[in-house]
Amino acid sequence: MELISSKENKRIKYLKKLFSSASFRREEGVFAAEGLRLCSDALRSGAEVVSAYFSQSFIEKNPDFIDEAQRKAGECLVLRDNIFSAVSDTKTPQGVLFVIKRLDKSFDFDKIKNNGKVLALENVQDPVNLGTILRTAEAFGVDTVILSRDCCDVYAPKVVRGSMGAVFRQPLHITDDLPALIGDFNRFGTSYAAVLDRGSVPLTECDLNGAVLSAVGNEGNGLTPETIAACTRKLYIPMRGDAESLNVSAAAGIILWEMVK
Amino acid sequence: MELISSKENKRIKYLKKLFSSASFRREEGVFAAEGLRLCSDALRSGAEVVSAYFSQSFIEKNPDFIDEAQRKAGECLVLRDNIFSAVSDTKTPQGVLFVIKRLDKSFDFDKIKNNGKVLALENVQDPVNLGTILRTAEAFGVDTVILSRDCCDVYAPKVVRGSMGAVFRQPLHITDDLPALIGDFNRFGTSYAAVLDRGSVPLTECDLNGAVLSAVGNEGNGLTPETIAACTRKLYIPMRGDAESLNVSAAAGIILWEMVK
Repeated sequence: MELISSKENKRIKYLKKLFSSASFRREEGVFAAEGLRLCSDALRSGAEVVSAYFSQSFIEKNPDFIDEAQRKAGECLVLRDNIFSAVSDTKTPQGVLFVIKRLDKSFDFDKIKNNGKVLALENVQDPVNLGTILRTAEAFGVDTVILSRDCCDVYAPKVVRGSMGAVFRQPLHITDDLPALIGDFNRFGTSYAAVLDRGSVPLTECDLNGAVLSAVGNEGNGLTPETIAACTRKLYIPMRGDAESLNVSAAAGIILWEMVK
Repeated sequence: MELISSKENKRIKYLKKLFSSASFRREEGVFAAEGLRLCSDALRSGAEVVSAYFSQSFIEKNPDFIDEAQRKAGECLVLRDNIFSAVSDTKTPQGVLFVIKRLDKSFDFDKIKNNGKVLALENVQDPVNLGTILRTAEAFGVDTVILSRDCCDVYAPKVVRGSMGAVFRQPLHITDDLPALIGDFNRFGTSYAAVLDRGSVPLTECDLNGAVLSAVGNEGNGLTPETIAACTRKLYIPMRGDAESLNVSAAAGIILWEMVK
């Protein structure tokens, strides 16, 4: 394996930029995942690992993992421990980092025609929320999570970590035109906009059988009028007390639970 | 109002320590909340504001708020803008900060005897999770949230902010002996330990009528054996897919939803 021992190596700059820049990740069509657990998840889930980077001390301690990575990754490289620490996005680097091909796919209507459950997220900004939502969606077997282009980048390091690997397994689709996609979905099923509005139905009274899409919006502003208009129906989660709203990850979690339970 | 114009002022060190040290907050019996929205919530909810601190530019822009704070707070002080920024726990300080008396109370069994809904958290460590859970608990009108002493401090700045003010309104109780408290609760109602175990009942089949307590545990390790043993029954949230578990705030949200809906 090639050894990188200089911080000036162009791969070091490349990795740092992959961690920090969503537009660079998009241009390159890849993202970075770090840590033994996430990288093991990536291997197990069949994600396409373009490059695998290890610190020297990681290699000494994890021979089996290295074997597997060498079989599956496009290339494997070694970094001196101090160089790995300089690249790492975490405080206590474990010494393993993969560059992985993006996993979002085009939307597959055939897959959701019969009883498919879809979550659509519009302009969700917080990476912790997005990671938690992906984890919940995977746990409940949601068929596809749709993200509007203006959501926080699903391949941001905090999202990848917070999803606990769900980003590798949960089918994802990113769209430039969420209302149009919902319009297409309406030919097969019922779409619900999560919004407290005149005519919104309490979640407890919604018919969530068959193919169902639920759309949840931005932390502060909720869904756009265009997306609300594109949905067949409107739902809200009944609340008490002085709370104005739920956290978007809590709201999405409860809606998903009702959709699949 | 007294003007503080030196970073060496002992109140400046006091405020910084309130933000950074859970043990200091506990010793002093107070905590700090920052920002116009949170401080407005504190005034509205009747929290006891010991001291109110404003930046000079905040005072110029918010005369009505200052009037109200002067009527309700024990004392009001002014900080030069640069001093306020040095104290602030946020990147873009709004210029208002309250020191508030702790709000957790002793556990009131009378209040929950009839149909009371209680959430018990054991060793929940992440402040974002804890803030989200408090917000959800308030939204669903949970009667009391019990925190084991080893939970992340409920008055940590990230929890206070993440709760969106729920920390001022949601009845809270902190206990040194969660299993004993659950034992006492069992005289009035049913307690459920959220754990995937032999004998655990799917959440969809739990009888959540009457007085109910649900206990949710640490992010990585779940509940302790002692707390599981103290509960009357065990429940789990049915999942599909490869996800090992839900995020604790998502799990707590779904259990609370089922308890109160």
